[in-house]
Amino acid sequence: MEQPIRYKLTLCFEGTAYSGWQKQPQTATVQQTLEEALSAQLDTLTYVRGSSRTDAGVHAREFIAHFDTLAIDNTLSFKEKLNAYLPSDIRIIDVVEAPAHFHACFSAKKKHYLYRFSLDPIPPFERHYITHLRGPIHIKKMEQALPFFLGTHNFLSFANQGDKGAAKNSPIKTIYSLTLEKEKSHYVLHVHGNGFLYKMVRNMVGALVEVGRGTLEPSGIAHLLSLQNRKVAPPPAPAQGLCLEKVYY
Amino acid sequence: MEQPIRYKLTLCFEGTAYSGWQKQPQTATVQQTLEEALSAQLDTLTYVRGSSRTDAGVHAREFIAHFDTLAIDNTLSFKEKLNAYLPSDIRIIDVVEAPAHFHACFSAKKKHYLYRFSLDPIPPFERHYITHLRGPIHIKKMEQALPFFLGTHNFLSFANQGDKGAAKNSPIKTIYSLTLEKEKSHYVLHVHGNGFLYKMVRNMVGALVEVGRGTLEPSGIAHLLSLQNRKVAPPPAPAQGLCLEKVYY
Repeated sequence: MEQPIRYKLTLCFEGTAYSGWQKQPQTATVQQTLEEALSAQLDTLTYVRGSSRTDAGVHAREFIAHFDTLAIDNTLSFKEKLNAYLPSDIRIIDVVEAPAHFHACFSAKKKHYLYRFSLDPIPPFERHYITHLRGPIHIKKMEQALPFFLGTHNFLSFANQGDKGAAKNSPIKTIYSLTLEKEKSHYVLHVHGNGFLYKMVRNMVGALVEVGRGTLEPSGIAHLLSLQNRKVAPPPAPAQGLCLEKVYY
Repeated sequence: MEQPIRYKLTLCFEGTAYSGWQKQPQTATVQQTLEEALSAQLDTLTYVRGSSRTDAGVHAREFIAHFDTLAIDNTLSFKEKLNAYLPSDIRIIDVVEAPAHFHACFSAKKKHYLYRFSLDPIPPFERHYITHLRGPIHIKKMEQALPFFLGTHNFLSFANQGDKGAAKNSPIKTIYSLTLEKEKSHYVLHVHGNGFLYKMVRNMVGALVEVGRGTLEPSGIAHLLSLQNRKVAPPPAPAQGLCLEKVYY
């Protein structure tokens, strides 16, 4: 009997129209849309595992997923068929054979997220990709707060409200770098880490915004981390500024 | 009695959700959406005239319009109220008092359009702004065709099919410059002219695509122009690559 082969998918999506990556009943998700396309092309019910659980409205420039199937003759033409089938807000960049032990989620070593925000109103062309932050925001203060997130910490205070899995699975994560860059008229916060809890980046940005507004001291980040309690941290920043840039294996 | 004052509006819009600028029954247009916002803010039925009749799906980075009303106390706060009222795909950039003889359409001296296209599939984030052209396209050949459009010509062959106004109003237009630039992974055709017939830029691009595909010689552009007959030119290029960049007065 023919053995199934594991394939690694690289895809890009605009999350605006989806309730995030993960399958949920009665709502459009990227995972379900992709599984429908794969199942139709492979003529058999096919499941796909993703590298990350992205939220509703969050985007991905290089999202990784894997699926198992019998050998695909021509991965290039398979990719083109998938793209013809998929809606234009999801694009397959690459389909390659992967080792049997490869796992889109568990094999990930590092992830790069970015969060775009602007202190000015957002041009219509970028309204789904940049968050408009109102009120006076002191960028310098935000920058002073960044180093408090660096390194290895228990991030339970920045987990999703009511996320019981966060404590069970390890809430200990390492942030390798956190930088704020100006790009044309908006700011981009780049975060590299070995892993992220659900909504963790948005919760980190939410706290940084409070620092920028002066309602939280930069060193308050260290205090929030030490409390290891989701209820103490500010609310998450809006989803549309967030983009999963790249997953490293 | 208080005299009405003319105001010049600068706005930016993503045309994806609209049937173009111009009011039409039973479909969303930018003009109608803007008139609703102005009428609500000014508490009186207000009409607006635009610089150009953009098609369905065409965008504008700096579209100009004018309207008449009694003096507005604070144009900055008026602008903010308009933006709060308008959907996020239309943004008011500026509201300023204009001379009484200023007319958004008739006072325009020069317009700058750009048309973005790519020979590769379009990333989801840019799918509404760039047209994907399939099949082998020879950029060099397209470039050879550009000079045939330069200068003053009768553009009837590049008018909209069935546009009876094009012949009546002057179809004689001057193209000041036409350049093709590479920007990251896509191409941008920049067109500066003193005026454009309805669908003229898309029809020009449609012909240039045929040149790129080898089904029309570069010099064929001159021949098409000389025929002054809409039926001879290739079909228009898709709307979503087109953007009105700027109107000069």
